[in-house]
Amino acid sequence: MIVRNPNIANLKAGYLFPEISRRCREFAATHPSAVRIISLGIGDTTEPISLHICDGLINGARRLGSIGGYSGYQDEGLLELREKISEVFYESKFGADEIFISDGAKCDIGRLQMLFGAGIEAVVQDPSYPVYVDGSVLTGAAGAWQGNGYHGVSYLPCIAENDYFPDLSPIPENSLIYFCSPNNPTGAVSTREQLLKLVKTALGKGCIIIFDAAYSEFIRDTSLPKSIFEIEGAEQCAIEIQSFSKPAGFTGVRLGWSVVPKTLKYAEGESINADWARLCGTIFNGASNIAQAGALAALDPDGLKEMRRLTDFYLGNAYRIKNALQNIGVSSVGGGDSPYIWAQFPGRDSWDVFTEILEKCRIVTTPGVGFGPSGQSFIRFSSFGRRADVEEACMRLRDLRN
Amino acid sequence: MIVRNPNIANLKAGYLFPEISRRCREFAATHPSAVRIISLGIGDTTEPISLHICDGLINGARRLGSIGGYSGYQDEGLLELREKISEVFYESKFGADEIFISDGAKCDIGRLQMLFGAGIEAVVQDPSYPVYVDGSVLTGAAGAWQGNGYHGVSYLPCIAENDYFPDLSPIPENSLIYFCSPNNPTGAVSTREQLLKLVKTALGKGCIIIFDAAYSEFIRDTSLPKSIFEIEGAEQCAIEIQSFSKPAGFTGVRLGWSVVPKTLKYAEGESINADWARLCGTIFNGASNIAQAGALAALDPDGLKEMRRLTDFYLGNAYRIKNALQNIGVSSVGGGDSPYIWAQFPGRDSWDVFTEILEKCRIVTTPGVGFGPSGQSFIRFSSFGRRADVEEACMRLRDLRN
Repeated sequence: MIVRNPNIANLKAGYLFPEISRRCREFAATHPSAVRIISLGIGDTTEPISLHICDGLINGARRLGSIGGYSGYQDEGLLELREKISEVFYESKFGADEIFISDGAKCDIGRLQMLFGAGIEAVVQDPSYPVYVDGSVLTGAAGAWQGNGYHGVSYLPCIAENDYFPDLSPIPENSLIYFCSPNNPTGAVSTREQLLKLVKTALGKGCIIIFDAAYSEFIRDTSLPKSIFEIEGAEQCAIEIQSFSKPAGFTGVRLGWSVVPKTLKYAEGESINADWARLCGTIFNGASNIAQAGALAALDPDGLKEMRRLTDFYLGNAYRIKNALQNIGVSSVGGGDSPYIWAQFPGRDSWDVFTEILEKCRIVTTPGVGFGPSGQSFIRFSSFGRRADVEEACMRLRDLRN
Repeated sequence: MIVRNPNIANLKAGYLFPEISRRCREFAATHPSAVRIISLGIGDTTEPISLHICDGLINGARRLGSIGGYSGYQDEGLLELREKISEVFYESKFGADEIFISDGAKCDIGRLQMLFGAGIEAVVQDPSYPVYVDGSVLTGAAGAWQGNGYHGVSYLPCIAENDYFPDLSPIPENSLIYFCSPNNPTGAVSTREQLLKLVKTALGKGCIIIFDAAYSEFIRDTSLPKSIFEIEGAEQCAIEIQSFSKPAGFTGVRLGWSVVPKTLKYAEGESINADWARLCGTIFNGASNIAQAGALAALDPDGLKEMRRLTDFYLGNAYRIKNALQNIGVSSVGGGDSPYIWAQFPGRDSWDVFTEILEKCRIVTTPGVGFGPSGQSFIRFSSFGRRADVEEACMRLRDLRN
């Protein structure tokens, strides 16, 4: 019989979010009469898609019913959408053939891991979004679990002491650096100076940065960069991953993009852009044409206003959660220019705090240690939720004081 | 600097379909005044989505604009859709947790290749759909190109002499068998007896079959199996890949599914189903909720009628193309229960014939050798096209006689 892929065997049991769901189901089953559970756990959007963007989706679907409007395969994505993305997000400095439309950031990261293969060394912020590490384990770039990290992965602690921007000196040469800003889970947003340091380090050490900018539309402080390509030199060392999931409410609709500049080269001089096009053409068939029609609507003036309103709304939730935590003496970072709040419970185990909040407040959160060793004693609060639920959750958090 | 992934370097230049597009663009550029080119090349659907299914998509999009109808992440797919698929296609013998909703067959095959990893030996029908082999090269399961095949891949010739069903005796033990019926590109449909032989071989040799049933809805001969799971024993050795692309016109909408029975085990007894769920949860975020709404509409009585009508239409095209070929003395197989016609040009090079048809008839086809060594001297005609174009193409084929 076929033997199990050793890479899969290396993965620790239980992807974080399914594990949380399992614990919640268990809790609900053993506490049938309990007050309704409110989720501030997984970052899943809750607000309906706003009028103009939704019309874009509806019209995209309707067009498929007519001879003139029908469309089939479009692997690399609509030309019009790729050009629009370059215009809106990158001052048109990228050609359409440097923008690749995807079905979302997570899926793109998985494909990028296949692109770079088993021979690459991975570097992650610690804590970080699980797919950087778990996907690296799947492709064999990372090896066996070694107590508090996977073999072959460099973890860069992002902690209160360094203001959640890591010391870059341990980054190995020729490695693949996963970097997320605004950060999931800490909510920290890197400054221009910090990103300049990151790009310089990558250029100096021959590294490629996979810059996850999925939360950039939550940035309100105009001095903070929204894209790695605002930083000089990034076009020689960075790939950017983006998504409509949070700013347009497309977590279920599925649409994102990657930017892979043509200036990116391997050691031997071959084009990374060409390999990425080839890989996507081989194992991917593009994002849904309906989702792409919605994205086009999201990028016109009305759509951009709606995305601003939606991200404002979730930032309003974040503000309320941050205040509620402050009122019970829990200090936190994030939430100002990001939808996540990173709350510190010094000296305590994340899963214990998770359980306590679930039991005392009937609120689902995400235990920080699930994002990496340095997440221990932290809890991530997500601001994605209905306003009434968030306000109710803020009230209930008072019960944590005792 | 980062070194190129050797797996990518192993891939021969030019994925088949982009290569065809390139040649067509070149031809069009050097023949500006030429008669309009008709494509019977890539199998891309051309008919608008029919009324009821399109309404399903429109309503799926519209619902996202309301509080009650909004939905976010749904990685494993809508429960209702998974249950419906089990009922319509598998007499409800699979649980919802054995049906995984995907964004299409090609993407699922890519992920399955990641699941089984670099250590697996691949077996393909020769000729076959390129992703089985190209994706195996990407994961490292296949190695360097060796003149007429990749190292580590077993090619099973499907030729006129064996009626396009291969000799199974060369299949290595513990290998991964990619098998497609109705076949792309030959159009051959395996009989129950043939598939029984395949399943027996897989069980006897400890192999797993990845059964690509993306064209099953074109089968009209009721004695021919539409699913590998109609064959006894398949639940111990097969995964089925399916798609709405062709029967519902969803090539651009993106929706498919995989069936991974819980009875499937590795040598050590672990569950392949559990690993597949884990892998999909890690690097995939599910298919678009709008596409899923369309699929639900496609599987109710009206939708099923519309899919039947659409596949009938393309089979009508196939019938016309087959006749036109016969009239000029070109013999072919397929087209009766499949949308592809596999036409033989004995003693000739596929790319030469491709060029001749392009030059004399202004018709784009697919050179058989692009699907594997045994495709040499064949041409694949796709029946996906507007009726008027197909009829015009059939007229033009007469020019091939001289």
